[in-house]
Amino acid sequence: MSVKIPFDELKATAKKAFLNLGLDEHKAEICAHIHTSSNADGVESHGMNRIPRFAEYVKKGWININAEPELIKSKGAAENYDGHLGIGVTNALFCTERALKLAEAHGIGLVALKNTTHWMRGGTYAWKIAEAGFIGISWINTESCMPMWGSDVQGVGNNPFCIAIPRENGEIVVDMAMSQYAYGKLGVYRLAGKKLPYPGGFDKNGNLTSDPGAIEESRRILPTGYWKGSSLAIALDMAAAAISNGLCGSDIDENNNGSCTGCSQIFIAIDPYMFGEKNNIQNMFDRRVKNADNTHPIDPAHPVKCPGENTIERRKSSMSNGVTVDEQIWEQIKSLAEGNLNVTDIASR
Amino acid sequence: MSVKIPFDELKATAKKAFLNLGLDEHKAEICAHIHTSSNADGVESHGMNRIPRFAEYVKKGWININAEPELIKSKGAAENYDGHLGIGVTNALFCTERALKLAEAHGIGLVALKNTTHWMRGGTYAWKIAEAGFIGISWINTESCMPMWGSDVQGVGNNPFCIAIPRENGEIVVDMAMSQYAYGKLGVYRLAGKKLPYPGGFDKNGNLTSDPGAIEESRRILPTGYWKGSSLAIALDMAAAAISNGLCGSDIDENNNGSCTGCSQIFIAIDPYMFGEKNNIQNMFDRRVKNADNTHPIDPAHPVKCPGENTIERRKSSMSNGVTVDEQIWEQIKSLAEGNLNVTDIASR
Repeated sequence: MSVKIPFDELKATAKKAFLNLGLDEHKAEICAHIHTSSNADGVESHGMNRIPRFAEYVKKGWININAEPELIKSKGAAENYDGHLGIGVTNALFCTERALKLAEAHGIGLVALKNTTHWMRGGTYAWKIAEAGFIGISWINTESCMPMWGSDVQGVGNNPFCIAIPRENGEIVVDMAMSQYAYGKLGVYRLAGKKLPYPGGFDKNGNLTSDPGAIEESRRILPTGYWKGSSLAIALDMAAAAISNGLCGSDIDENNNGSCTGCSQIFIAIDPYMFGEKNNIQNMFDRRVKNADNTHPIDPAHPVKCPGENTIERRKSSMSNGVTVDEQIWEQIKSLAEGNLNVTDIASR
Repeated sequence: MSVKIPFDELKATAKKAFLNLGLDEHKAEICAHIHTSSNADGVESHGMNRIPRFAEYVKKGWININAEPELIKSKGAAENYDGHLGIGVTNALFCTERALKLAEAHGIGLVALKNTTHWMRGGTYAWKIAEAGFIGISWINTESCMPMWGSDVQGVGNNPFCIAIPRENGEIVVDMAMSQYAYGKLGVYRLAGKKLPYPGGFDKNGNLTSDPGAIEESRRILPTGYWKGSSLAIALDMAAAAISNGLCGSDIDENNNGSCTGCSQIFIAIDPYMFGEKNNIQNMFDRRVKNADNTHPIDPAHPVKCPGENTIERRKSSMSNGVTVDEQIWEQIKSLAEGNLNVTDIASR
C-alpha cells in the first residue's frame, strides 16, 4: 500500500533522516531533494525506497559522508575525479556540473568519476544536464547482478544508461537499466503484490517468469532484449572503468561492500546548439515528438508518448496531489527522522 | 542457400561492381573492402546483401557517388560535416578518422555528420575506432521503420547504436539496432527459410511472431526490450539530428528517398588511457572479459562470450575457409561485376 505525502513534508522528513545519519546541512538538503524528487517523478524504487539501505551503508562505513570528489587529472574536454566513496548523489551532481562547464568550453564535456557509491536514480544526472540546456549521456557500472546471456549465474551489472534531450517543451529522457527490470522495480512490484507486465527473468528452475519475488530469489534477471542488454552492459562496464581509471564490475564484486560501492560513472554533456540555431533545433524537437506521439495507438486509451513525457505529468500531479510513497517505507523514513537508525532494507533483497 | 567464396575473390568482384556503378578507384576499393569484411564478420545483412540496393539508389540519384564530406563548423572537441548525400560508407569512415584526431587532441572527439546516406554495417566505425586504440561510440537516425511502443504503425527508426572497447586481445564491440532484429537480419532469416530465435515483431493481425516474412510484411518490428528500445530510438534520433543540425527521423520520412537517405550520424572517440596507465587498463579489460566468459553456462556446449569475440572467430574462419555469401546475392554481385546493372533488392522489402 502507498500513501500520498506533500512534497515539502516528505522532503523535510527525509532531510531530518539524513541529518540524523550525520550528513551536513548542505548534503542533507541535496539528498532529501533528490530522493523526494525521484518519488515525485514516479521512480520510488530509487527514491525513498533506497534511504533505509543508504542508512545501512553509512552505518557500515561503506559510504564516507564527509568525502568530496577530488580532481585527479584533466585532458582537454575531459576530467577524472576520485569520489573517495563519498555520497553517490552529491558526487554525481558535482560531476554533472563539471561536464556542463566542459561542454560550454569544448562543445562536448566528459567527466569520469571513479571510486564512488550508488547514484540512486540514474536519470537524475541526465535530467539535470537537459534542464541546463545540454544533451546528457551518463552511465554507471555496478556489481554483478545479472547473468551474461547464456549463463545462469550473475556475471555482469545491469549498468544503467541514460540519455536526455533538452527540449524546452518537456525534456525527453531515457533512463534504462540493461536488465528488463531494475531490481528496485522488482521490489516495487513485490511490495505492491503485483506481477511484472512482461517476463523479467528466470526462476530458480530456469523458467521465464513474471513473478518479481522469484527473480529476486534466483537473481536471474533477464537482460533487456536478451543478448543485447547483456552485450551493452559489459561494454558500458569496460568503458566506464577504463575512462575513469576505476573498478570494473568484477572488481566491485571482489570488494563486496554493497551495491555500487566503488563503482565508476561517466557524465557527458553536449552543446545541442553549437552547429545549429536554437529555434530550429527546438522546432525540430517539437516536430519529432509530435510525429511520434501522433502515431496510431494500439489502444486509443493509451496514446503514444515519448520517454520523459509521462514523468513530467507525474511530477506535476505529485506537486498538486502529494507524492506517492510506499507505506512501510514512509514509516521507516519517519523512524529515521525521529532518530531511530535501526531500519532494515525492505525494498530489495 | 549460401556459398563460401575466398575473401579476395569476393572483394575483387564487389569492386568491379562498384566500378561499374561509376565509383572511382579509391571509393570502389574502400566499399568493396567494407562490404566484404562485413560478410567475413558474419554480418551478411549489411554486407553483400546491401550492394543491389546500393546500386538501385545510385541509379535513382539518391546517392551522389562523387560527393565528399564538407566541414561546416567546428567547436573545441567537435566538428560538423555535411555529407552531401555522398556514399554512406566513405563519408562515415572519413568522420571516424576525424573523431580519432579530435580525441587525440582533446581526450574525447565528436563528429556529427548530416545529410549522408546509409552507412551499411553500423559497427564498422566503432570497430575502426577500437582498432585504432580508442573507445568508440556511434549512432545513426533512420527513417521510421518501427512502431513506437504502444503504436501499431511505424513511427521511429531502429537507429543502431554502437560501442567498442579497444581490447588488444580482441575488441569488445556492441552493434545493436533498437529493434530486436534489424530488417536486414529478418531478410537473412527469410532467405535461409528460418524462424527467428525469439519473437521479433507483430504480424498484421497484431500477434507476436517469429516469422521474419510476416514482420517484413506488417512492418511491426518489436523494439528491443519492448518500451526501452522505442525510448532509446527516439532519444538517439533527436540527439543525432540536433548535434549534426541535420534531419530527424520524421524529416527523413518526408523525403522518402530510400533507407537512411539524408540521415544524421554521430561518431565519438575517447582516449582510454588519458587517466590510467595502458597496461593496467588492458589488464582490467582481460580480467573483466575472463570473469564474464567464465560464468557458468546454461548449456556447456555454448560457453558465455562477450560481444565481438564470436565476430573475431568468424572473421578468422572466413579468411581460412572462405566468406559466406547468399547464393542469390552472389549471383547478383557477379552480374553487377559483368556490367549488368539491372538487379533488384532481394535482401529486404
